Amino acid sequence: MTKPLVLHPDRLFPSDLTTRDIARELYTQIKDLPIVSPHGHTDPSWFASNKNFSNPAELLIQPDHYVFRMLYSQGVKLDDLGIGKSEKAKNISPEAVWDIFAAHYHLFRGTPSSMWMNYVFAEVFGLDIALDSKTASHYYDTINSKLATDAFKPRALFDSFNIEVIATTENPLDDLKHHQSILDSDWNGRVITAFRPDNVLDPEFPSFVEDVRSLGELTGEDTSNFQGYLRALRNRREFFKKMGATSTDHGHLTPRTECLSNEQAATYFRNALAGKLDSEGADVFRGHMLTEMARMSIDDGLVMQIHPGCYRNHNNFVFEHFGRDKGSDLPMPTEYIANLKPLLDELGNDPRLQIILFTLDETTYSRELAPLAGHYPSLKLGPAWWFHDSPEGMRRFRQQTTETAGLYNTVGFNDDTRAFMSIPARHDVARRIDCGYLGQMVAEHRMTLEEAHELAVDLTYNLAKQAYQL
Amino acid sequence: MTKPLVLHPDRLFPSDLTTRDIARELYTQIKDLPIVSPHGHTDPSWFASNKNFSNPAELLIQPDHYVFRMLYSQGVKLDDLGIGKSEKAKNISPEAVWDIFAAHYHLFRGTPSSMWMNYVFAEVFGLDIALDSKTASHYYDTINSKLATDAFKPRALFDSFNIEVIATTENPLDDLKHHQSILDSDWNGRVITAFRPDNVLDPEFPSFVEDVRSLGELTGEDTSNFQGYLRALRNRREFFKKMGATSTDHGHLTPRTECLSNEQAATYFRNALAGKLDSEGADVFRGHMLTEMARMSIDDGLVMQIHPGCYRNHNNFVFEHFGRDKGSDLPMPTEYIANLKPLLDELGNDPRLQIILFTLDETTYSRELAPLAGHYPSLKLGPAWWFHDSPEGMRRFRQQTTETAGLYNTVGFNDDTRAFMSIPARHDVARRIDCGYLGQMVAEHRMTLEEAHELAVDLTYNLAKQAYQL
Amino acid sequence: MTKPLVLHPDRLFPSDLTTRDIARELYTQIKDLPIVSPHGHTDPSWFASNKNFSNPAELLIQPDHYVFRMLYSQGVKLDDLGIGKSEKAKNISPEAVWDIFAAHYHLFRGTPSSMWMNYVFAEVFGLDIALDSKTASHYYDTINSKLATDAFKPRALFDSFNIEVIATTENPLDDLKHHQSILDSDWNGRVITAFRPDNVLDPEFPSFVEDVRSLGELTGEDTSNFQGYLRALRNRREFFKKMGATSTDHGHLTPRTECLSNEQAATYFRNALAGKLDSEGADVFRGHMLTEMARMSIDDGLVMQIHPGCYRNHNNFVFEHFGRDKGSDLPMPTEYIANLKPLLDELGNDPRLQIILFTLDETTYSRELAPLAGHYPSLKLGPAWWFHDSPEGMRRFRQQTTETAGLYNTVGFNDDTRAFMSIPARHDVARRIDCGYLGQMVAEHRMTLEEAHELAVDLTYNLAKQAYQL
Repeated sequence: MTKPLVLHPDRLFPSDLTTRDIARELYTQIKDLPIVSPHGHTDPSWFASNKNFSNPAELLIQPDHYVFRMLYSQGVKLDDLGIGKSEKAKNISPEAVWDIFAAHYHLFRGTPSSMWMNYVFAEVFGLDIALDSKTASHYYDTINSKLATDAFKPRALFDSFNIEVIATTENPLDDLKHHQSILDSDWNGRVITAFRPDNVLDPEFPSFVEDVRSLGELTGEDTSNFQGYLRALRNRREFFKKMGATSTDHGHLTPRTECLSNEQAATYFRNALAGKLDSEGADVFRGHMLTEMARMSIDDGLVMQIHPGCYRNHNNFVFEHFGRDKGSDLPMPTEYIANLKPLLDELGNDPRLQIILFTLDETTYSRELAPLAGHYPSLKLGPAWWFHDSPEGMRRFRQQTTETAGLYNTVGFNDDTRAFMSIPARHDVARRIDCGYLGQMVAEHRMTLEEAHELAVDLTYNLAKQAYQL
Repeated sequence: MTKPLVLHPDRLFPSDLTTRDIARELYTQIKDLPIVSPHGHTDPSWFASNKNFSNPAELLIQPDHYVFRMLYSQGVKLDDLGIGKSEKAKNISPEAVWDIFAAHYHLFRGTPSSMWMNYVFAEVFGLDIALDSKTASHYYDTINSKLATDAFKPRALFDSFNIEVIATTENPLDDLKHHQSILDSDWNGRVITAFRPDNVLDPEFPSFVEDVRSLGELTGEDTSNFQGYLRALRNRREFFKKMGATSTDHGHLTPRTECLSNEQAATYFRNALAGKLDSEGADVFRGHMLTEMARMSIDDGLVMQIHPGCYRNHNNFVFEHFGRDKGSDLPMPTEYIANLKPLLDELGNDPRLQIILFTLDETTYSRELAPLAGHYPSLKLGPAWWFHDSPEGMRRFRQQTTETAGLYNTVGFNDDTRAFMSIPARHDVARRIDCGYLGQMVAEHRMTLEEAHELAVDLTYNLAKQAYQL
Repeated sequence: MTKPLVLHPDRLFPSDLTTRDIARELYTQIKDLPIVSPHGHTDPSWFASNKNFSNPAELLIQPDHYVFRMLYSQGVKLDDLGIGKSEKAKNISPEAVWDIFAAHYHLFRGTPSSMWMNYVFAEVFGLDIALDSKTASHYYDTINSKLATDAFKPRALFDSFNIEVIATTENPLDDLKHHQSILDSDWNGRVITAFRPDNVLDPEFPSFVEDVRSLGELTGEDTSNFQGYLRALRNRREFFKKMGATSTDHGHLTPRTECLSNEQAATYFRNALAGKLDSEGADVFRGHMLTEMARMSIDDGLVMQIHPGCYRNHNNFVFEHFGRDKGSDLPMPTEYIANLKPLLDELGNDPRLQIILFTLDETTYSRELAPLAGHYPSLKLGPAWWFHDSPEGMRRFRQQTTETAGLYNTVGFNDDTRAFMSIPARHDVARRIDCGYLGQMVAEHRMTLEEAHELAVDLTYNLAKQAYQL
């Protein structure tokens, strides 16, 4: 007996009927608005080459750390999912990987992954029975054969997903050739980049010294001295901007900022290149470079994103055998008030500066982030991020930030994903949760229906375009 | 087309109809109870002189940091709001300030400020169309002309607001002449003071040394030695108590307490006067003085309020150009368990001591504050404070404290405001949220309707009177 | 006028009717499943001797720190409750204690204690009027006379409570004679032990040195050296396992782990026995011993429970006059990511290791615990614990952990209680809250009704049996 797969039209709306009716009315109005995706990790080569995706496992399982971290937590070996470089991993068939996923699909009950996956199965691939061990091969075959068609080429999907603009993320050394090739093509899809300079700002990045040297070569600047290094960074920002970038992105361990004198900064930089900075010194330098990035943002207008507080590669064994981004990145307690002060003292009252703050530490929503964004003209709040990009996570974000920061100091939704197929699903979840939130505000007579209608459009579309200057 | 301004009778009640019916029934019973306002920052000179308020901008915008911090966060200059001492600020008309506020009023959607403001507009000033740019001058004129009438003099408003008692906050050097003048008048309004000695307890307070000297002159005690200083403090507490005070209030950076020997304390005090305490030394002294205040409270019966965890004047630029209380005070992580232990070890089991704890760090509700208040006879929990004095903030407070501390270890509502016009609005929000919370408890059969009725009166009226000994 | 005591059949279900109907349907299916109680603190001598319980005060008030901490917080003296060794405490009658409890019963409104107590009164003792001062003696007499009957002997209650298995907690020096006597009896109740070695792992435990010596005598190992000490621990674990234990339990102040070399560990141990470890050294040793416990768990299969983050005996006065466990244990901020890393680096990817994590710091649910359990195959999440073992606490646990850890990385419910009479009440609360949570997931179309039915059984019964290998 197969079970039906049904996406209920009222899913994710509050169950209270008064609220649900309002939520549904708000959602109806915004559900077909174009997708604005100002922060994410899709691969620009997909849209440049426009080749078909390979198979269901390689597309939907192996790159999705949300998926394989859960399987791993319940004893599934990563090799058995075809992840890693072992013989076992190389020899496993995509069908076998898919079977394991199907057999464990119940683990995802109640998680956003199941919401996203079911949406992809039903809406993108037209499946109408639920995934389990018995339906695994039907799923595999259906998805696999569709993936081979023209309608499932990356550009066709991009268009059918109604994406108005998507940002990828590249480091300053990237030549952006895929973006250039998209610009040069006859396809009109807007795929822009974002400037992610961690590798040349963070002295503890493994290839820092080498990458700073390459940065010099690429720009013709002498990056062995601090002023040349700053000029090289400005140069690459300019190039990224020319290629469409409207933002930078910074994934430091903490949101620490510093405001050193030029001489101090130059000394730290010299020591960084000489490998002489200890951990605290590296942290000071990273912190100062956020302030330098803010200075450049004031000049070139790129919006700054700060994504702090992630303990990368916590699991030594998994990191050593399978590499980065394999599901053992973990949130850390994060402090913003003292950490951001040096930068804010220097530049925080300049309305030309726009910094979007993210967090993995929800305790900061009401205690630090909303109070900061509700005061400083340079600060806005990014949406619920990563582990918190989920129905309950988004509800907590709204409930804990709106009353102090308001809704207009937030920036709409980011999907932040490399899982291209799930992008419409993720935006749909955000739209439904926001409409439910607004619906509750109306049902409790905390705003008018007319205000909620305006806000539904703003939260879905306008705020992202404004905040990211798209 | 103007839009109507309607205060829905069911606003802020949960939308579920079963719960709403119960909440409404509970609210009906308590909505007209007198306002008890045991902690706040209204200006006693208003009630002493009973002069008319000046104009809408000076009354409703310029003193309300909730309002102008939001405007500032969206790029409005404080000078343009008539705040500060620049030529621009001095020359801007109140009408122009009001226009800016009206044009940005949508920023407050979903915030408590919009709930409070709409209540003031509708209930106090009888307005029935919504505020926006088009209705700004109608608003200004209506409010401005009402402010000039006898019915809008401070005492008349106090009476029409049905305020039974209100506490202001003064420092120990205050001569309380306005309170005296109210007592001497033929008006029966009860306006009491609260003893806020931060300026003479905190060695890092800018005028500490000078204020301690003045304290000596005022009391005839030799405040150059510690025992004289303690006697002077006792003397002023006695004076404040005679003038109606029932409580003290302490706004330290942390709730740190210490219990030094008399000799140690005297040494710290000597060093404080000599400007020889470092930051840690000042913190120790402040901590010890909380214990001294608790000792005095046991003797004179004044209830102690501790309001810790606020990073004052975070924005250097705003502080330097516009001064204190300009919207850049920010919450900090706050620790209570270890910080309060020295005081509690010394005095915490004495039922004559009553300490009311507040927080800006909601993570402490279930982790520290409720467990403390649910055990120590000397501890009670103040209501959701400042950034958390909001519908969602109050709900979190109840949901996260009741199960461990119970409802009888809380003290009712504090408005904590200098925005006099909004006091009925603020108490009304608290009453509605508490009735909604109790309504949910009844709807989920976690208490009986009869218990909820008793509690609604207790939370609205009795607990504040008991806790503050009014 | 007495008031009725009614346990509403829909209590604790969400009030929204759609959700409530689903919750009720789910609950109907699982409400009569046997109780699996894998972690608690009942006294095995009750079941060994099977003597009648003494009286209502001694059974329901004096051992229940949830109850007397609340009374104490409102000024009731512990002596007046017959707690402690004063003359007053010894001379107070159980009837007088009961009267005090009854007179203060309103303090528990909205707390889990009132839910549990009312369940015990109605379901266990058949009372149908509410407890207050007027009904106190009726209550006392009814309960007291029932306690004297055969149907209220411990084994009869165990059977009528439908307990399939219950775990007590003993330290390694315990001879488990009561468990042996239960095994030797003709009664079939399954009462197992759990291995709680804090007293011989923690150098700061008052009797550490003496207890380690006793451990040596008991096992015939030379516990003056580290290898003999480890062998002695293995020996006692084996004995506990033979007597039914399936788990160990560790109540350290923090979840700190360390992974020392054998030589380092031996040195720490030597210093511990010689009383030469400072506080940091003791912490290192405790941390290393968690890793040793994990190694032993891999070998003998005992599941490891870690219950960290409790500041024991915060109230000096109460501790000195009344001893341990008198209601002044308080939660502390707790960090897991860095603290667990040494153990996880060593053993965390071994699926034979099963560690169940608990917390008193709810901020770690979404930030640390769910991300950890959603990745490491060795980690599972214990249920909402102690102060958070409550309707709102359980809701927060599910809302903040499910989306990242899923439901299958949790382990069902623990009652963790010595209050034997309340065990069915506590499990009933958990079942109702979980059914309400699942009901909401179904009502919001986030899972199917069929999935929720499966999960209701899993959360109530299967997961506890699997996780604790029962």
